[in-house]
Amino acid sequence: MAENDLKSLFLHQLKDTYYAENAIVKALPKMAAAARSEDLRGAFAVHLEETKKHVERLDQVFRRLGEQPQGVECKAINGIIAEGDEVGQEFQGSDALDAGLIAAAQAVEHYEITRYGTMIAWAKQLGLGEVEGLLKETLAEEESTDELLSEMAEDAINPKAA
Amino acid sequence: MAENDLKSLFLHQLKDTYYAENAIVKALPKMAAAARSEDLRGAFAVHLEETKKHVERLDQVFRRLGEQPQGVECKAINGIIAEGDEVGQEFQGSDALDAGLIAAAQAVEHYEITRYGTMIAWAKQLGLGEVEGLLKETLAEEESTDELLSEMAEDAINPKAA
Repeated sequence: MAENDLKSLFLHQLKDTYYAENAIVKALPKMAAAARSEDLRGAFAVHLEETKKHVERLDQVFRRLGEQPQGVECKAINGIIAEGDEVGQEFQGSDALDAGLIAAAQAVEHYEITRYGTMIAWAKQLGLGEVEGLLKETLAEEESTDELLSEMAEDAINPKAA
Repeated sequence: MAENDLKSLFLHQLKDTYYAENAIVKALPKMAAAARSEDLRGAFAVHLEETKKHVERLDQVFRRLGEQPQGVECKAINGIIAEGDEVGQEFQGSDALDAGLIAAAQAVEHYEITRYGTMIAWAKQLGLGEVEGLLKETLAEEESTDELLSEMAEDAINPKAA
């Protein structure tokens, strides 16, 4: 029990997020292939490259903690991605498909936003300044992606779906 | 396929969120019972009452759409809650337990924030002004809860966990 302190909680969350980022790397090409709007396909492609960088940043975080990068199954991201797949199947061929794909992608972004937010607070508490900086870079990109998706939905995708 | 427009996507999301809010009503008393900090137990108890109101507001939204309130299984919230349960078990008796419970609760809040955000945008697009207003009331409460949990974590829970 002595080991079950904030640092081990941080490490647990880091492994969970590592699994999640790798799952997103696998999911994004499928979402891009499913999207009907060229702009949305482009946004998913850009975010795929960002997500690969997020995995690399987590690799660095593991190394700075003297740990090997490894994931633990993240049931939350599995559920979020599975739900997106279901909507993708159900609304295939519909004008509302892209609106559903954006909603799924934003659920993914918000999961990451909450996990990075938590890990940043814990890294700060633990005095892990460099780790905190790396996590903040990724958080800023997740927040930008979420905002971009909101704008795309409101400006173009939702009106087309209605 | 003709039915698979933005309105049916909205209804699908509404049922998903209805299931999620009801799952949260069941999960919060367990989280409150597990919490070590009296303040955190209190915050979970307050949010339980709010969540019951959120279910009632969704009942109203269904009625305004001429539909019976009903849920569809939401794999995302099931995964998020299951993950919180695991952390609760693993860190039982540890000073870091409450930090883990707050992280779990914030993952729940962010799931709701993204779903309400999406439904508000769709309701606006569909010209469902009253529905939009009801959903906005709930979104504001979810956002306040998320901020309160961040403050509690940073001010008291994380320092104690470190």
